[in-house]
Amino acid sequence: MEEDIASALCPPASRLAGPSRIPYPMPRQAGLPSAPTQRSCLWVTLRQGAGGAPWHRPRAPAPVTPVAPCPRLVSGRGAAEVTPVEKMSGTGDPRTGPVENKNEAAMSELVPESRQKPVVPMKPVGINANLLGYIGIDTIIEQMRKKTMKTGFDFNIMVVGQSGLGKSTLVNTLFKSQVSRKSSGWNREEKIPKTVEIKAIGHVIEEGGVKMKLTVIDTPGFGDQINNENCWEPIEKYINEQYEKFLKEEVNIARKKRIPDTRVHCCLYFISPTGHSLRPLDLEFMKHLSKVVNIIPVIAKADTMTLEEKTEFKQRVRKELEVNGIEFYPQKEFDEDLEDKTENDKIRQESMPFAVVGSDKEYQVNGKRVLGRKTPWGIIEVENLTHCEFALLRDFVIRTHLQDLKEVTHNIHYETYRAKRLNDNGGLPPMTSETEENHESNL
Amino acid sequence: MEEDIASALCPPASRLAGPSRIPYPMPRQAGLPSAPTQRSCLWVTLRQGAGGAPWHRPRAPAPVTPVAPCPRLVSGRGAAEVTPVEKMSGTGDPRTGPVENKNEAAMSELVPESRQKPVVPMKPVGINANLLGYIGIDTIIEQMRKKTMKTGFDFNIMVVGQSGLGKSTLVNTLFKSQVSRKSSGWNREEKIPKTVEIKAIGHVIEEGGVKMKLTVIDTPGFGDQINNENCWEPIEKYINEQYEKFLKEEVNIARKKRIPDTRVHCCLYFISPTGHSLRPLDLEFMKHLSKVVNIIPVIAKADTMTLEEKTEFKQRVRKELEVNGIEFYPQKEFDEDLEDKTENDKIRQESMPFAVVGSDKEYQVNGKRVLGRKTPWGIIEVENLTHCEFALLRDFVIRTHLQDLKEVTHNIHYETYRAKRLNDNGGLPPMTSETEENHESNL
Repeated sequence: MEEDIASALCPPASRLAGPSRIPYPMPRQAGLPSAPTQRSCLWVTLRQGAGGAPWHRPRAPAPVTPVAPCPRLVSGRGAAEVTPVEKMSGTGDPRTGPVENKNEAAMSELVPESRQKPVVPMKPVGINANLLGYIGIDTIIEQMRKKTMKTGFDFNIMVVGQSGLGKSTLVNTLFKSQVSRKSSGWNREEKIPKTVEIKAIGHVIEEGGVKMKLTVIDTPGFGDQINNENCWEPIEKYINEQYEKFLKEEVNIARKKRIPDTRVHCCLYFISPTGHSLRPLDLEFMKHLSKVVNIIPVIAKADTMTLEEKTEFKQRVRKELEVNGIEFYPQKEFDEDLEDKTENDKIRQESMPFAVVGSDKEYQVNGKRVLGRKTPWGIIEVENLTHCEFALLRDFVIRTHLQDLKEVTHNIHYETYRAKRLNDNGGLPPMTSETEENHESNL
Repeated sequence: MEEDIASALCPPASRLAGPSRIPYPMPRQAGLPSAPTQRSCLWVTLRQGAGGAPWHRPRAPAPVTPVAPCPRLVSGRGAAEVTPVEKMSGTGDPRTGPVENKNEAAMSELVPESRQKPVVPMKPVGINANLLGYIGIDTIIEQMRKKTMKTGFDFNIMVVGQSGLGKSTLVNTLFKSQVSRKSSGWNREEKIPKTVEIKAIGHVIEEGGVKMKLTVIDTPGFGDQINNENCWEPIEKYINEQYEKFLKEEVNIARKKRIPDTRVHCCLYFISPTGHSLRPLDLEFMKHLSKVVNIIPVIAKADTMTLEEKTEFKQRVRKELEVNGIEFYPQKEFDEDLEDKTENDKIRQESMPFAVVGSDKEYQVNGKRVLGRKTPWGIIEVENLTHCEFALLRDFVIRTHLQDLKEVTHNIHYETYRAKRLNDNGGLPPMTSETEENHESNL
């Protein structure tokens, strides 16, 4: 694994080196000719024992290696030499010449037999050697945490589906606060809009000191017309407009330090709990949009189905999506490793589409407060996994895949948009003219 | 603070809204006109009590707010209504109409007096409200940690200074392993090069499961000639070449998912421990290079100075840098907040330039193994703060500022290069011609 990474990331400087073979410098091999090139690059791997990282197997004591000779071996063999106990490398400081030289002689007697010349010296040499104590490389995690705590992060979630499927309630349940307006509820003067509207509401939600700048993008009117032809178009347009905005910021000469991210990271698509099959509009929407955004299909109001109906309906929906060649998030092709694949296969084959129930009301059940829906026949607890799969969806969207949703949006969907845009433009980035900018801000 | 962030990050969609005032929807205020625009954006702030984050003061129980009415207030006043205990928002699901309406009536009696219309409705509304339980937003940190553990990170450090100042030894001490070749040591056939050379060696160092792809860039020959005029030029050229490489990758139509980062994140500049003053070459180098790279000046081989000499020399160096208008990392203007400023001021005014001693040999001192240098008059322990400031430098470069060094390189130095490059090119990005690419890889 180290070799893979090292070879993948060997900086281009390696390509600058002249001769095809530069042996790794053996510090104690006097007379080794210096590399005649002006620039060179070699790669080796060193390791500090990692505590409980799952993929990091415990290792035997450091082997005898030609690259970063672990001095413990030296002191083990030349036991007479007590100090210096350990020694990292060859020719020392000129100021300590005498001491150094004595030691060097001792070293050159001991080490040579275990040396081996690297066969392909220009490629990284994968070696596990213990470091001489703790350095602090893993503090980068803490440094990144601190930066994230300061800056917060953007997350933009879109909800799409016919009115009455509980989109707003579900997104409110997801974030346990009123983050979405009920745009077309009962007892209101609001009417179902005549065309698909796009409504974005922003919230800053803070938890454990981490600030999320959440934008909920609602799409009232979707699927509510007599003729719903092409009603996914305004949605696709909105999604692409956010990519365009980001792209324009990205190609600007004077860029913002952090480009405001309005790109849609996640689109929850609400499937009606018919128990029958997907509707043509469902297929049409997902077919078009799965190429531009991370779509997570959910079966809305799953409390209308019995356990058996739910299982059967989920299977049927998965089958229909497969037959129609519709991919949803997380796509197989974007799994980065076996761990991803194992985890995501389970989601793709078992959990999707999540059959959920939302609620913004709390009830007392066995002395505990639970979010739920009270009916004459019992309380449906939305976070109870035996009642519905809301908790699975919440864990998936927020607790395990939130960062990945953002990364796939950036690395896949945005990159696809960008490449297409630049190709259409003859390789040139879109230029923001002043008029265009004014126009936008006045819209 | 939340307001700042919210306003800074309110997505451009906010600018799309039509009327200048949209009151935040009061869920229980029947008859509120719907926003006539197709797109709108509002911002509010919600907070979950954060444990021990230092900048996060404990807060009183949620106030009565018009935006995200915390239902605890409702249940507190309308004590007769036991269930539903809590209620997040207004018009409920049509399916539970009757229950909902009863409750809604109760709400509209209780809440109005505490409502206040936002004065500037288009700006984010800063509200602290408790969420109805834990969501999991802070798991983003853990998700980022997992991603970093998988991918590792790049760190590229350059050492510059006259030969014999212990550059290689120091960098080996810094990473507690042999990461730098001793290019011009004693007892070697290598000669001091006639011109400045640039030598990059790559290592993968792993600690606590985190992989750092470290590249050490050595610059043998710097300052070693009779005439050292412009000898900083090849170094600046190398640094800029890495920016150019990154820029070319960045503007490519088909981009790599992760652009290999060969940019120099940190340049340790070694000052000779003369006890007198900086040399003209020191000033010249830092004056030119501090604009393109993060320079950290260090006083090499500080064991040649007494405590008093060291203190005096450090003060003089700081003064000289100031008089000559030379800034070093961390630059004042890039401090992001008061916390940064306080921390960095201490470093700028007290620690810089770090007076260090390097060693790659271990000795037994009071039964402990320490990295040190043995002299007839005692062992200099490099990590002992009463002996030298190596540990301060190590903590600064690796344990507190490593991520910042990378970010300043990307956000400031690279951005400066990029803006200049694009401006010189009439706003167009550099195009990579095939010949150019071939040329580079054959260098």
